[in-house]
This record gives sequence, structure tokens and C-alpha cells, in this order.
Amino acid sequence: MFPTPLSVIIAELESTYDPAWAESWDAVGLVCGNPAEPVSKILFAVDPVAGVADEAVAWGADLIVTHHPLYLRGTTTVAADTAKGALIHRLIKNDIALYTAHTNADVANPGVSDALARAVGLTGALSPLRPSPDDPSRGLGRVGELAEPLTLQDFAAQAARGLPRTAWGLRVAGDPARLVRTIAVSGGAGDSLLGTARAADVFLTADLRHHPASEFMQTGAFAGGPALIDAAHWATEWPWLPQAARLLASGLAAKGITVETRVSQTVTDAWTTTAQCED
Amino acid sequence: MFPTPLSVIIAELESTYDPAWAESWDAVGLVCGNPAEPVSKILFAVDPVAGVADEAVAWGADLIVTHHPLYLRGTTTVAADTAKGALIHRLIKNDIALYTAHTNADVANPGVSDALARAVGLTGALSPLRPSPDDPSRGLGRVGELAEPLTLQDFAAQAARGLPRTAWGLRVAGDPARLVRTIAVSGGAGDSLLGTARAADVFLTADLRHHPASEFMQTGAFAGGPALIDAAHWATEWPWLPQAARLLASGLAAKGITVETRVSQTVTDAWTTTAQCED
Amino acid sequence: MFPTPLSVIIAELESTYDPAWAESWDAVGLVCGNPAEPVSKILFAVDPVAGVADEAVAWGADLIVTHHPLYLRGTTTVAADTAKGALIHRLIKNDIALYTAHTNADVANPGVSDALARAVGLTGALSPLRPSPDDPSRGLGRVGELAEPLTLQDFAAQAARGLPRTAWGLRVAGDPARLVRTIAVSGGAGDSLLGTARAADVFLTADLRHHPASEFMQTGAFAGGPALIDAAHWATEWPWLPQAARLLASGLAAKGITVETRVSQTVTDAWTTTAQCED
Amino acid sequence: MFPTPLSVIIAELESTYDPAWAESWDAVGLVCGNPAEPVSKILFAVDPVAGVADEAVAWGADLIVTHHPLYLRGTTTVAADTAKGALIHRLIKNDIALYTAHTNADVANPGVSDALARAVGLTGALSPLRPSPDDPSRGLGRVGELAEPLTLQDFAAQAARGLPRTAWGLRVAGDPARLVRTIAVSGGAGDSLLGTARAADVFLTADLRHHPASEFMQTGAFAGGPALIDAAHWATEWPWLPQAARLLASGLAAKGITVETRVSQTVTDAWTTTAQCED
Amino acid sequence: MFPTPLSVIIAELESTYDPAWAESWDAVGLVCGNPAEPVSKILFAVDPVAGVADEAVAWGADLIVTHHPLYLRGTTTVAADTAKGALIHRLIKNDIALYTAHTNADVANPGVSDALARAVGLTGALSPLRPSPDDPSRGLGRVGELAEPLTLQDFAAQAARGLPRTAWGLRVAGDPARLVRTIAVSGGAGDSLLGTARAADVFLTADLRHHPASEFMQTGAFAGGPALIDAAHWATEWPWLPQAARLLASGLAAKGITVETRVSQTVTDAWTTTAQCED
Amino acid sequence: MFPTPLSVIIAELESTYDPAWAESWDAVGLVCGNPAEPVSKILFAVDPVAGVADEAVAWGADLIVTHHPLYLRGTTTVAADTAKGALIHRLIKNDIALYTAHTNADVANPGVSDALARAVGLTGALSPLRPSPDDPSRGLGRVGELAEPLTLQDFAAQAARGLPRTAWGLRVAGDPARLVRTIAVSGGAGDSLLGTARAADVFLTADLRHHPASEFMQTGAFAGGPALIDAAHWATEWPWLPQAARLLASGLAAKGITVETRVSQTVTDAWTTTAQCED
Repeated sequence: MFPTPLSVIIAELESTYDPAWAESWDAVGLVCGNPAEPVSKILFAVDPVAGVADEAVAWGADLIVTHHPLYLRGTTTVAADTAKGALIHRLIKNDIALYTAHTNADVANPGVSDALARAVGLTGALSPLRPSPDDPSRGLGRVGELAEPLTLQDFAAQAARGLPRTAWGLRVAGDPARLVRTIAVSGGAGDSLLGTARAADVFLTADLRHHPASEFMQTGAFAGGPALIDAAHWATEWPWLPQAARLLASGLAAKGITVETRVSQTVTDAWTTTAQCED
Repeated sequence: MFPTPLSVIIAELESTYDPAWAESWDAVGLVCGNPAEPVSKILFAVDPVAGVADEAVAWGADLIVTHHPLYLRGTTTVAADTAKGALIHRLIKNDIALYTAHTNADVANPGVSDALARAVGLTGALSPLRPSPDDPSRGLGRVGELAEPLTLQDFAAQAARGLPRTAWGLRVAGDPARLVRTIAVSGGAGDSLLGTARAADVFLTADLRHHPASEFMQTGAFAGGPALIDAAHWATEWPWLPQAARLLASGLAAKGITVETRVSQTVTDAWTTTAQCED
Repeated sequence: MFPTPLSVIIAELESTYDPAWAESWDAVGLVCGNPAEPVSKILFAVDPVAGVADEAVAWGADLIVTHHPLYLRGTTTVAADTAKGALIHRLIKNDIALYTAHTNADVANPGVSDALARAVGLTGALSPLRPSPDDPSRGLGRVGELAEPLTLQDFAAQAARGLPRTAWGLRVAGDPARLVRTIAVSGGAGDSLLGTARAADVFLTADLRHHPASEFMQTGAFAGGPALIDAAHWATEWPWLPQAARLLASGLAAKGITVETRVSQTVTDAWTTTAQCED
Repeated sequence: MFPTPLSVIIAELESTYDPAWAESWDAVGLVCGNPAEPVSKILFAVDPVAGVADEAVAWGADLIVTHHPLYLRGTTTVAADTAKGALIHRLIKNDIALYTAHTNADVANPGVSDALARAVGLTGALSPLRPSPDDPSRGLGRVGELAEPLTLQDFAAQAARGLPRTAWGLRVAGDPARLVRTIAVSGGAGDSLLGTARAADVFLTADLRHHPASEFMQTGAFAGGPALIDAAHWATEWPWLPQAARLLASGLAAKGITVETRVSQTVTDAWTTTAQCED
Repeated sequence: MFPTPLSVIIAELESTYDPAWAESWDAVGLVCGNPAEPVSKILFAVDPVAGVADEAVAWGADLIVTHHPLYLRGTTTVAADTAKGALIHRLIKNDIALYTAHTNADVANPGVSDALARAVGLTGALSPLRPSPDDPSRGLGRVGELAEPLTLQDFAAQAARGLPRTAWGLRVAGDPARLVRTIAVSGGAGDSLLGTARAADVFLTADLRHHPASEFMQTGAFAGGPALIDAAHWATEWPWLPQAARLLASGLAAKGITVETRVSQTVTDAWTTTAQCED
Repeated sequence: MFPTPLSVIIAELESTYDPAWAESWDAVGLVCGNPAEPVSKILFAVDPVAGVADEAVAWGADLIVTHHPLYLRGTTTVAADTAKGALIHRLIKNDIALYTAHTNADVANPGVSDALARAVGLTGALSPLRPSPDDPSRGLGRVGELAEPLTLQDFAAQAARGLPRTAWGLRVAGDPARLVRTIAVSGGAGDSLLGTARAADVFLTADLRHHPASEFMQTGAFAGGPALIDAAHWATEWPWLPQAARLLASGLAAKGITVETRVSQTVTDAWTTTAQCED
């Protein structure tokens, strides 16, 4: 393969995930590496962590594209006696660049929640839960329909099969026997979208804590309202990785550029096992 | 029983859980009801929700003592077309008062995390993870020792047996075979205490989201650090209910006052079931 | 009378006083009561205070409509050992709902200052002192003309006759012999509108304190400017009550609904008497 | 008289009214004039307004000492086409300095509220309503006792006789027949001190608006609490003028310096007349 | 000459330098003096300081027009024991008004940076570095071309000859032999415009400190970028004085009004000499 | 030489320049590099810029100690297409660590301003201009005496000889013939210390802009006050480099550790030449 500079890869990524779409508090784009250096092997991962760096070094990656920023808030040091600084040293020493597409990938069309919606079995048209003001075809979250109604318990089982396995699976709130068809999803921590999901039968997202979930279910029990499904943050965003890899590869191919892509197999959900008392 | 005015019950509660100990953002104390009215039956619960009100009405309670405030942020309406306003109408119509001891119960000695520590099997002395500046014998969280080391997996199983059952149990991060002995616990959402638990072998708390848990484990993997256990917010605070009921009853008994107390059996954790893909 | 649910009354009130017109810091709408319950007797009052509740209970009102919010700033408690919490308990126990139309009634057309303008004798067209940006036919305050010029002293006497009596009447700043014709008025505390009234001959409002009144008169004396009249806050808003009662009753009548309305006769101005030294 | 430089007068004033005692938002001290210029005639007034400047020019004053700042908030212009700028030009052209003692005079001992307390007939010891943290013998407001109990109506009449006459006198809230003995007073706008006056029988101050006065009386009616008397801001602070003139003159006399002092007779309350409807 | 009131002069100045164009933090307009008083002699200066007042008194000026505000932040005193208060006293006593045109003169067309651009030898069309949002023909800074390229050293020498002499002249960053043609300039402290000047060959402004200058040159050395020239703040704004005097005089002449104008010759740059070690 | 880990060097530096002394907004400590790696050659410089990195690479340095932080405000990227990111890549690739001692070195005793004071010829005792609240022997700036009085011009010449040469030398404000003896100095941008230097005859610092310098000299001319000398920021901090190198080397030597130190000879002042018009 003729070497392709990183800058060309970045331009292709940003034609799909425009950095201008990112939230003002976000930190997207190139984190380390030199745009002039050649790239032929690209690893896609949710989290920029040590296990993913191991995978990148072992495979000989030139670039890691992650969903989560390494430094969401600014840092004044990359010293190697911190986990993140050690990662920076390791990547620079191994000539591996790191690039982040975060909230700009969330709101893209297709974006993170489209991939999630398909993974849990939605088959028809999808529309954003919170459309972007400047382009309502983009936005946060997605809502769509199942091909036919399922019980909540059956839909949860189907969702669990469609997402990568974590130690703990999914948590479900609501009556398991309830029939559901309209499904809202949001990859990652979706509590800020709870208010937009009232018209659905289920809202599936991640990182739901006690008070938002409890208030949502109390209000729903009183005023009618959706069931909730809580999955691993990592698992809800992972389906975006093959989607992004495919879009990048095909976009480059259309320009006559060939790269190797790989989707990370490292589970970066923190939870490794569970415990439960007997009934 | 000669009727005891609510004001006497409140005075006794506040001798144990001084409202001045509550955080500045908190909202503790009497939420509805009249301090001059008599109280003979007192229900203890974690959350002021409809299921708990059902239990109180059915039992004929005069007072509900909850850990969580009904209105943590102020409200300008208690209209009955909202879940919380309907609760207020129901309680007032049924002459049931509502009283909250929240962060003042968290930092009390004994307090919420003491009860949690005992429930998961800590047997020796306990000290606060974040001592209160004005009295270091009080504070947030507790740290103590197991009678003898256990594997992380065995300790998690013991903790699950000690806590009330929820649909999903406990989630564990770290090597299941690791031996653990020094245990830090914090009832409720404990992410703000992650920094104080570095010297323990395990930190058990609730409401841990992906980024805090993942950063904590990444740093721990790099610099040495504890395992994490995440339990239901409700389950970690429930052990405080019998403790508080006992302290109130014995404090009143010492003054010659008899009341009936009951600990709510309603599970107010939002999650009712789980789903998991096959291995 | 066939019972009309409170929700129908609210819908009619909000067709006249749209809650969306209220200031962002305001708290309008239903404060307590159940929209599904029937309403046949409606009391209108400026202030949600104990004397007004007495009047409502004695008359058998189902609903009190007030101008002032009970909780302008949010509350975390309605316990019955506070004046406001006791009011909530009394209203709920007596099945009396409480509804507030405040700054949305101020800016309505007709609204609070229209009623005030008519009460003090303005007869022609009225326009807002500070027009609403989205609809300049609405807005805060009103300015209009007297049928013919009066001395300031005579206008003040006419205004006093047109407003409900308080213990202290009106206070007047400026030359009593000055002829006035263009009159600006603003029901309630109008100091934020002082800058908009420069072109009138008189500005009549309430709650004027020393520094704003003194600076306004100093500037006026230097640069030409209006006289000031200060009346009781309650008295300047009271004329709105019969106007609102009439609009509600006629609006419901047009839908075939009959309700009984009453305007509160309780003086809720705080001042009960005056004292003065001899000349 | 041998000429005394303004700087010596200022030093004497500041030995009684230390500028360091002023609130952080206040603006006390010399506003215009030259500390090196001689001063022999000093006029004391509440407000730095045109009528007071007329009096100063007519009498030939070298210095005006006022309670209220001319520019409480900073100005970027003293141009003569504003009322305040015209005052600055007139004073500078006439070699009249302007000096302000405001919240430092409020908290002094004796200070503004001592003079007010004596003026309304308090005869015994006085203590601050809100003691200064650094010296509890100083502070805002005063509370003391009448020589013997009076009805509220009789005390109000006595207070009216003790204060300089304004067009409207005093407003009184509470039962006129109530016996009162413990009296709290605060010169000027005292609403921030309402919470400190709960234990008195009466709180006399100025600039009380509807909502603070109404809430105070509602709470008082519910929980027991004082009556209120509202007087002109100017009238409540005027008694301080002869006190301050006397203290300055005697302080200078002890250093062998003689100055002429005069207390302004200009009424700077904005209200010139009243109106009332017939009973 | 028939006397012209100051108000007429101000109206003419404001037709050229609209006060509405000033930044929100700025303080422009009349600082002292009376708009009704006659003006025949007008002095233009950069800074309202004692040396300029000397010049005004000596010449018999009725008005000083300065670029810099006397009180950019508000003052609560003009007492004569401060440098600024003494200036106010001196001007009022000598019937000299003071008027400021600051950021409204910066963004005018022509404005401060136009005059600077011409003074340093730019001959063709000029456009703003940061165009005003409401009118892009106005704005901060100017960019234009030299008639033909010069070395940086030669351009700096030409700029030094075009500006009034100060003790220290100009400081230059960049390679002296570099050929330059596109020149960006900004009168006064221009560090906030560094980001807008990237496409020029040189950016000439004033008050550049170490960190902004160093970061600008580091980035420029890395990514290509302009040289910098730092001149005295006073010297970069002085060329505006004859421009403004000429525009005012000709504007008034068109209305048949004659005034005398003079441009201050006082150097108000603080630096009076320099020192340097031998090579 | 036996290799010494970077962590030992850091511990020695921090025994002299305690990071806890740094301002809350500052960013001191290790910026890149691994504390476990060996260090034998240490370069001291004011600024972490490309020219200094060239010097470090050429000499084979293991560590650069700078006064200025690379990232004073946090960064979310170290990508190599920015000047600072390229520096990070270059240092990591060349195994060169970067460490910063900034405001903790300013307030140390001896610290940055001590070295400056000696460089400009102060010979006796020195005390801080703004003593540190917790230890008044430390602090910002220094004030001391010359061995005997000099004219301002002669002192400026002596200071210029004592500091490293820059293209433009020193700027002096005040009467060159004035005799001076008490000298205040502050390395780096000292405008925040202008108020503390009133009692000296001269204040020498860097980065003085027009308005602070002009207001300082106007006030001084009115009320008596010091002359000012403005030098290059870099030049005023450079004398600290040999001082710090010496303290580090001797501290390590006392522990039996030998390192090579070097003081950077790169001039990092941005200004490379000057221009001046003829007299």
C-alpha cells in the first residue's frame, strides 16, 4: 500500500463527523500524532485506555480512533506517572496517533444511536430524540418501531443478544409483560434525554442512576410513560465502531485509498463480574 | 398509648440526626404534617414514593421518616396532577406527616454507612472516609476490616447476602480472585468519595457510572488501587432503616414514650428484572 | 349546576392569561388542588393569605384565584408550622384549589394596569408603558389621557376615590397645583418602570422607596418630568379582580358553563392605621 | 476664627465614623473638595440634593456632610447636564466640599439608630439588632424599652411627634390597642433586619414594601410577632444630624478648634401631599 | 466668532464617532462641562492628564477632546486629593469641558487605525482586521499594502519616521531582512487582535507583553506567520488627533460654524529615556 | 556517573521550590517524562520553546527545568501540528523530561526577584514587596538599597549592564537626574505589584503597558512616588537560572549525587531589533 498521510484520514473522518457539530464543552479531534505521518492500520475503540493501547501496539496500528476523549477537561501535564500521561508516552514512542469523534459522532446521521437502534432490532425509519437545531435530520438519540410488538421482557432479551456481552447485561424497569413497539435509544449516558422519550414504550440508554430512574418511573406510573432499560455505556456505543470503520474505509476507497481497519475486541466496561443473593 | 405530639418525635430524631449537620444544598426536616398532632405509628423508608404511601395508609401510619427528600430542589406547586403533589395531597388527607433525615443521617455516628458496613460483614472499628471538619468521629462513608481476608468474589457474595435483594444484585470490578480485607463503603451515590478510598482493597457504593468507574480502575491498574462494587442505591441505604427505628424507639422509651415503628418492605429500586445474552 | 372540572376552569383562565407570558422568574398556575375535581364557586383575591382562606372556607369556595404566588421562590416543605404550609393544609383539607395569574395577568390585554387605569379615571385609549417584545398590544403598565386636565391634587383625590380604601390612601410627590392630563400607571411595585414614564405628567404605582422616588424627582426637577403618586400595592391590583372574574364568567358562559364568582372583600394591605404629628 | 483645613475636619469625623466600618458596597468619604482648603461652616443633611446645595450656598457653607452618598455606584461622568453632575459643578464653583458618612454612621455607637431610638422615646439602654461581628457594641438597628407600656396607637403618636414632620407621617400595621414596650428601630430601609426584630413588640423602620410587610405580619399573626411602623426614610435618619453635628463640634473644641455647624431644615422626603377617599 | 454651545460641538463629533459604536465596557461622551456653555477653542489629545490640562489652560481652551476616558471604571469620588479628581476640579474651575471618543473612534471609518496606517506609509485601500458585525466597513485594526515590498528593517525605519518620536521608538520581532508588503496595524493595545493578523507580513501595534508576543512568534515560526512591531501606545493613537480635528472643523464649517482646533504636543508616553549595555 | 532517577531530582527541586507555594491558577511540576528514568544532564531555561529544545537535544540533556509553564491553561491535545504539541513529541522521542518551577520559585527565598535584585546591584538585605501570608520571609518582589545613591540614569545603566542583553534594553520613566537609593524589583510582569512599591525610589519590572505605567507616574507626580524601569520579561527572570542550578547541584552534592547543569544561552525575548526616528 502506498502510504496515506494522517491528514487525509482526518479529512475523511471529518467529512462524516464534522467537529463543528460537537458540543461546546467537548474535546474532539487529534490528541497526539503528526498529521504528516503515514497511516495504514486504524483501530476503532470506545475508550482510550491501556488495554486498547496494548491491542494497537500488538497489531501495529498507526492510528486509534476512539469515541471518548482522553482529556475531556484540559490537562497541564502528560507526565508518565499518571495513567493518561503514560498512554501519551506509549503512543508517541510507538508512532501511534489518537483521534476522537465524540458528540459529533453522536449527532451524525448515521451516528452512534443509529448503530445502537439497529443492534437492538429496530428495522424501520429512525428519527432523532433531540434534533439538532441547525439540521433536524441529525441529533441526539433515536426513536423507531419494532417490526411487531414484543413483551418488554422479550425485547430486553433481544437487545441483550444484539449488544456485545458484559458481565452484567441489561437492567429493566417496568412491567415485564407489557407489550412494547415504539423504542427510544441513546448511546452512552442518556439521562438528559429522559424528558424527550415520554411518547415511546421503552427508553434504552446507559448510566442511569437511582434518582433520575426512580423519578422517571414514578411520573410514568402516575401519568403513563415508558419502561426503561439500562445497559453498559460501552456496550451501547460499541455498535458505532464497525459502522464508523465501514464509512471511513468506503469513503477512502472512493478516493482510491486503501487502509486496514479493525474494531477493538477489548471490553472496556469496568464491571468484570456480579453477585446476587439467592431468592 | 397516650398520644405523643409529632414535635416530640422530631426532637428525638434531631437529637440523633442534627439538621445542622446536613449539607447546605440539602432539604431535611418536616415536609408536611402538623407538629402539634399526635403520632403513634411510624414507618421508615428510603424513598417518599407512592408505594411507600400505600404501605403507610394500609398500616395506619401517622408519620413516614424517609432518607430521601421529596423536594430536594424547591417547588412552587403541590398540585395533584404531579406525582409528588398527589403524594402531598394523599398524606395531608390521611393525616400522615412526612419527615426527612438525609445527609445529616449520612454523617451521623452511627449513620447510614455504619449500617451498610455491618450489613456487608465488617466486624471491627469503623472510621469515616471523609471525616466532618467539626467532628472527625462523624463523616461520610466508612472504612473497616473484615475479620479475615476473603477473595473479592467471596466478599461480593457475602455483601449480596447482607443487603436486601434487588433484581440485579451487585456489579464487581477487579480481579475476582484478589484477596481483600480493608473495605470502604458509602451508602448511596459515592462517586465523590472515590478519591478517599484509595487505601482500601474494595470500595462498595452505588450509582457508579462508566467514566468515574473506568478512570478509577485505570488509575488503580497503573498505580495500585482498590476493586469496586456497585450495588443498588436503595439497597445500600436500606440497612439504615432498622438502625434509625431502633435508635428512635429506644430514645423515646428512655423518656417513657412508646411508639410503634415499622421498616418499609417496599423495594423502591427502579429495576424490576434483567436480561443477558448467552455466553 | 352540573359540576365543571377544575381543568376546564384552568383552560379558560389560561386562554385569557397565557402562562407563557409570565416572567421567567415567576411562578404561575395551579398551586394545590386536583384538576379532575369539580368547581362551582370561585373566589378572586390579590393575596393568598389566611384572611382570604377564611373567606373562601366560609363561602364554600372550590377555587381561589390570586394575583400573587404563594411560593414565588420554591419551597422544600409545606409543613403546617409555617403560615404558608398551614394555608396549604387548610386548603387541601377543605378541597379548595389555589391558582395564580401574576405577571401573565400584568401583561394581558386587558390586564392589571388597564383595570387600574380605568379605576383612576382614564377614559380613552391606553397603551403599554413597556410593550411586550412579541406583541406590543400587551405589556407592563399603561399610559393614557384624562378627559380633561386636572390639578395634581384633584387627580390624586379622584384616584383615591376610584381605588379601594386603605388606612393611608395615596402619597403624592410634585407641585399639587400642577395641571396634569397624561397619566402613566402600573399596578404593583412599579419602580422598574420609572424610566418609561418620563413623558407622562404623572406616574401612579406602588411600593416606591426613598431613593428611587427621590432620584426620579431630582432628575425631573432638573430636566422636566412627571409627578409621582404612590398607592397601596394591594389597592392598585384590586381593580383587576372584578375584571378577571367577569372575563372568566363570560368566557365559560359562552361554552354553556355557569360558575359563581366572588371578589374578595378582605383588605390585605398590611397597614391598619396611621399617625401624624400636628402641624 | 483661624482657618481649619478640611483634612482636620475629616480626621475628626473619621475618629467617630471610621470608614473601615462601612459595608463593602458602600461609598463613604470625601466626594469633592480639597482637603487642604479651609473650612469654617459645616452643614449636615441626609441627602446630597439641589435643595440642600441651595441652603449651603445661601449660608456660605464650606462643607456639607451627608448621610447618603451622591454616587453609591460609580460614575464615569460628572457632566453638568445631569442632576448629580450639575451639583458637582455647583459645589466646586462655590468651593463647597461634600463628605459622606453612611453605613459607617449606621453602625457607630452612638449612630443613626441610637438617635432614632431617642427621638421616638426610648429612655433606657439600647443594644444593636444586628451586632457588628468585630465589636458587638456597634451594629445595625437598636432595640430598647419604653419607660412604661403604651398602646401601639399611643406609641405611634409619640413617635410621630418625635420625628420631623413629613406630608404623610407614619403607617402602622397590627392591632392599635395592643400594649407595646420593647421597641426595635432601624433608620432607613430596614427590611433586611425584619428577621432580627421578632422578639420586640414593634419594629419601626422605613421603606417597607407590600411583600416583606405582608409576609412579616402573616408570620407574626401565625407564630406571634411584632407590629410594624413605617416612617419616611428621611425622617428616620434626620435625628442623626444634630447628634453628628454635636459630636463633631465637641471633638474639635477639645482640640481648640471652633467651627460653625448647622442642621439642614430642607425636607428631602419625596412626598409633598396625600390623598384619601372618604370613609 | 459667535459663540457655539458645547452641545453643537458634541452633536458634530457624534455624527463622526457614534457613541453607540463604543464597546459595552467603555465610557465615552462628556465627562465634565456644561453643554449649554459656549466653545470656541478645542484641544485634541490622547490622554486626559495634568500636562494636557496645563496646555489647555495656557491656550485658553474651552474643550479637550481625548481618546482615553478619564474614568474607564466608575468613580464614587472626584475629591481633589487624587490626580484625577484634581484634574476635574481644575477643569471645572477653568470652564474647560472634557469629552472622550474612544472605542467608537477606533471602529469609525476613518478611525484611529486608518490614521495609523497612513502614518506608517500604507497607500492603497484599507480594510478592518475585525469588521464590526453591523457594518463591515467599520471595525478594529486595519490591513493594507505597501506600494512596494520593503525589508522588515526598512519598513520599521519608515514607521518610526511616520510616528511621533518617543524615547524608545519601536521594537521589532522577526528576521530584519524578511521582505514585507501586507501590513496589519492596530492603534493602542492590540493583543486581542493577534489572531486576526495571521495572513499579514507584519502586525504593528502597542503594549505587547512577553507571553502573547512569544507565543505568536513561536506559532509563526512553526506554521508561518507575520513579524511583529511594538510601538508606544500613545504614538500609535496620536495620528488620529489631526484627523479628528480636521473632520470636526470641516463638519462645523459646512454648517457655517468656525472653531479653533489644536493638536496637543505633549508626549504622554510614560518612558522618558532608555538604557542599554554595550554589545 | 551512577544514574539518578528523575524522581530524586524532582524531590530536591521541590525542597527548594515547594509546589504548594504556587498560585492556585499556576501549573507547576513535571510536564512530560518519566520519574523512574535516569537523569544526568539538566538544562535551565526561562521559556519552554523550540530554540531551547534545540539546545537540549544538541547537548544531550535529560531534563529541562523552565520558569514558564508550557500549558498554563489546560490543553486537550498535544497533536504535533501545534508548536507546543510538536515540542512534546520532540521531548518524548528524545527522552527529555520537562519540569516547571514558576510562582513557587517567584516566592521562594532566595527566589526569582532576589537573583534580579543582585543582578542590578543591590547589596544589602532584601525583603519581599508582598510577603507571603504564611511566611513573610518569602513573597513576591524584593526591595532593598543601593550601597550609595545614584542618579536614575546611572542606576538604569548599571541595571542594563547587570542583566543579559536584549535588542532593546531598558525603558525608564521619571527624571533621569533624580537621585535614587531604595530600589524595588519584581521579575516578570510586575504590574500587580505597582501599589506595593510606592515607598521606593524606583520600581524595576517587566511588561508594563501604557495605562498602568501612565497612571502610576501621574499619581506619583501628584503625590510623590517612584520612577519606573521596564526591562525584558526574559531578562528579569534569567538571573534566577544560575541561582537555581547552583542550589540544585549543591543540594544533590550534599546527598552524594552529581549532575551536570547548564544555563540556557538562548535569548527568548521576542524582540530582535529596534527602530527610532532621528531627533
